[in-house]
Amino acid sequence: MPKFYFEDFSPGWTVEFGPRRVTREEMIGFAAQFDPQPMHLDEEAARHTMLGGLAASGWHTCSVMMKMIADGVLLDSASMGAPGIDEVKWLKPVRPGDSLTVRGSIVSTRASQSKPDRGFVNFLWEVFNDRGEKVMTLTCPQMMMKRNAGAPA
Amino acid sequence: MPKFYFEDFSPGWTVEFGPRRVTREEMIGFAAQFDPQPMHLDEEAARHTMLGGLAASGWHTCSVMMKMIADGVLLDSASMGAPGIDEVKWLKPVRPGDSLTVRGSIVSTRASQSKPDRGFVNFLWEVFNDRGEKVMTLTCPQMMMKRNAGAPA
Repeated sequence: MPKFYFEDFSPGWTVEFGPRRVTREEMIGFAAQFDPQPMHLDEEAARHTMLGGLAASGWHTCSVMMKMIADGVLLDSASMGAPGIDEVKWLKPVRPGDSLTVRGSIVSTRASQSKPDRGFVNFLWEVFNDRGEKVMTLTCPQMMMKRNAGAPA
Repeated sequence: MPKFYFEDFSPGWTVEFGPRRVTREEMIGFAAQFDPQPMHLDEEAARHTMLGGLAASGWHTCSVMMKMIADGVLLDSASMGAPGIDEVKWLKPVRPGDSLTVRGSIVSTRASQSKPDRGFVNFLWEVFNDRGEKVMTLTCPQMMMKRNAGAPA
């Protein structure tokens, strides 16, 4: 049984997950499989790119974050999934060995117009490295079951 | 040397990549590592979710698409990377064994105001399954070097 339902999320709610260290081997492994651009794959080639050295694929950072928020809150919630992503910003490179922290907050919530048993929670997820730099932000609407389906919220 | 520069991309440009088959094993492997929600991880548990059966993590679909567009065009281009993603829509579940095709087009381009050697190409990527259903769309600004740095474009 979920611990958290739509009614449990509102602006003011915050969480923090991590730290989660991302290794060079993981970064290169993800890049080889999914994003084989030189700045994600090879230290020497990466030096000649705009990032000035090896950095995680932005998709890898998204995926690592996803695991942290799934373990941290979504698997304990009545989440039904997300219809998409509103926006992702990759602000700073994630470097080999960086330890990432995720801070979650809520931009807004709204009950579904068409389905009285659920609503949408618009999360803002911010990812920081261990130097206190914000490396990524992501906003995402998450569909959540209501604890009391049919009740206005 | 890149084959394609900023000047080579303009509205009207289109490409198509694939098909790329996504197996059940891959889906479950990605989910276990990055997105361990029941609808992505376990056939039986997935049946009781809104998706009605096992489906790929949306992040997995993004990552598979990334590999297709890297191999298909970005690695041959003067791409410097992307500052983020404007929007992702997950429209239909990607099922085990689906073969994905990616269609790329260009929404708009603009020269950088501050840096005369580069510009932004705003791509629309649409992903289809082998039943002709659109499963995902993604819009993303890609930073590209100009062939003729300093020339207006």
